[in-house]
Amino acid sequence: MRAITISEPGEADVLVPTEVDAPTPKPGEVVVDVVAAGVNRADVQQRRGFYDPPPGASPLPGLEVSGRISAVGDEVEGWQVGDEVCALLVGGGYAEQVAVPAGQLLPVPEGVSVDDAAALPEVACTVWSNVFLTANIQPGQWLLVHGGSSGIGTMAIQLGKAVGAHVAVTAGTQEKLDFCRELGADIVVNYKDEDFVEKVREGTGGHGADVILDNMGAKYLARNVETLAISGRLVVIGLMGGRRAELDLGTLLAKRAAVIATTLRARPDTEKATIVAAVREHVWPLVESGVVRPVIHSRHPLEKAADAHREMEASTHIGKILLTT
Amino acid sequence: MRAITISEPGEADVLVPTEVDAPTPKPGEVVVDVVAAGVNRADVQQRRGFYDPPPGASPLPGLEVSGRISAVGDEVEGWQVGDEVCALLVGGGYAEQVAVPAGQLLPVPEGVSVDDAAALPEVACTVWSNVFLTANIQPGQWLLVHGGSSGIGTMAIQLGKAVGAHVAVTAGTQEKLDFCRELGADIVVNYKDEDFVEKVREGTGGHGADVILDNMGAKYLARNVETLAISGRLVVIGLMGGRRAELDLGTLLAKRAAVIATTLRARPDTEKATIVAAVREHVWPLVESGVVRPVIHSRHPLEKAADAHREMEASTHIGKILLTT
Repeated sequence: MRAITISEPGEADVLVPTEVDAPTPKPGEVVVDVVAAGVNRADVQQRRGFYDPPPGASPLPGLEVSGRISAVGDEVEGWQVGDEVCALLVGGGYAEQVAVPAGQLLPVPEGVSVDDAAALPEVACTVWSNVFLTANIQPGQWLLVHGGSSGIGTMAIQLGKAVGAHVAVTAGTQEKLDFCRELGADIVVNYKDEDFVEKVREGTGGHGADVILDNMGAKYLARNVETLAISGRLVVIGLMGGRRAELDLGTLLAKRAAVIATTLRARPDTEKATIVAAVREHVWPLVESGVVRPVIHSRHPLEKAADAHREMEASTHIGKILLTT
Repeated sequence: MRAITISEPGEADVLVPTEVDAPTPKPGEVVVDVVAAGVNRADVQQRRGFYDPPPGASPLPGLEVSGRISAVGDEVEGWQVGDEVCALLVGGGYAEQVAVPAGQLLPVPEGVSVDDAAALPEVACTVWSNVFLTANIQPGQWLLVHGGSSGIGTMAIQLGKAVGAHVAVTAGTQEKLDFCRELGADIVVNYKDEDFVEKVREGTGGHGADVILDNMGAKYLARNVETLAISGRLVVIGLMGGRRAELDLGTLLAKRAAVIATTLRARPDTEKATIVAAVREHVWPLVESGVVRPVIHSRHPLEKAADAHREMEASTHIGKILLTT
């Protein structure tokens, strides 16, 4: 089958279409004929050599796909050849076929096309596991989402609003902020010329953010802690602004607040299956009723994966970038 | 009534026995005739001028007492004059009488004397709320307790072992470590000449600590994060080693771990009542069956509160220091 391999760590042109062996399903797995694959910032980091796949994972990039089941391994129940699915992966999505543990499969939601469904698994599982399972956001609370126009950001805004939370976002252009506002964001902050600490404080009447979903890490740590409400939870899921920064435990203690850092990819399959099951129970009905929708910026043919990476690195996109087979 | 007031911020001799007005119960409160009061490190900080009482609280020090109810305010159900109780306070315990919101009362446990019961509320509520409600320790997990021979430490060891966790502690003398071992600690570390990161790593077979209860703050932050297990939770409840330190979010993210900082005193009465109710349900039966016992180092007459503070500041005690009326 065709797949995209990383010839060596480097810029986008190290993504090379290659002929590789097709996967076969181990016990507990299915093989999916890929229709579309989602592109994630983690793939860019992996391409650059900064984010190696966990032990045992496919060396191919790609953390999510949609498509049709073409083979079912032993010990798999509830899935059949021909089922239209999307899936959360530990790697291997940039390919015509991929093997997936059955616990990481989701049906294509009603009302969503098979290829659009590739935009959902990573963002839905990331937002649900962090904002809901880990940070336990409640109706009426304030959620601050950094990178509000990213794939994760657009899902976080929609899910936050769907459960009755108030949402603040940061983004870097007026076009992105306008889009976040259309999705439901109550407070929008242009991080290039506004201070999110001050704007969130004002916009929440001094309350602050009960939950912050952050992809910047070190660069925003002090300001995020300053922005937290009493009993607030800062969830760091990316380190685009570095990994080391000073933490003021006195401020954290006075607020009885938490700093949590986490990642989806490295979790064991059992934890991923728990998250996927929760997403199917809580997020899928919202997608099927149209309350939450996949936000797709662009589609590139699989063999043009390098173009997709260049687009992501330019950071002009709003929502997801997909590869199609 | 007699009470201990803080004449000005300073050393122990600013604690002065004084005649003050006796409290009367507001709606929802009772007044307790104090038999004994617990001494806490927070009282020392308050005396030094570093830890002001929250708005509306008594200016007198003292976060816990035991005694007998002498007056019951309006809207209080389930408590009567003469009941033997102990109580969690926001302040005012260094006195012959104190007013207490009814939600912060606990009965004196069967098998414990009225005066010994003053050793229980603060440590039981602190350990239960942090190690159990917040960090959700599970049977078979590893709990690391810094200051294992303190009042909080001796309660954390006993409660950790009672629920089937494994316990590691740090302390500064062999006598203190021997006592922690007698209480059930599996790993004991003399922080003066041993590295707790290494000793916990070795003692847990490389697993690390699932939950850390920390009173040092900045000084231990990096080493605590290094000691955490995958999905570990560091709960900071004191800042004896400073408030600002570098946090490596990359390490935290790789471990999917959390840094939580919290304090009991500043919480609203409703949250305190929830914690007290949980302590009554989960901790009191363990005290009444003798599995968990108050550890009391010494008793001083109320008017000698200064001596009690000097003893606490010398840090030679094991367990609680009490004042008796």
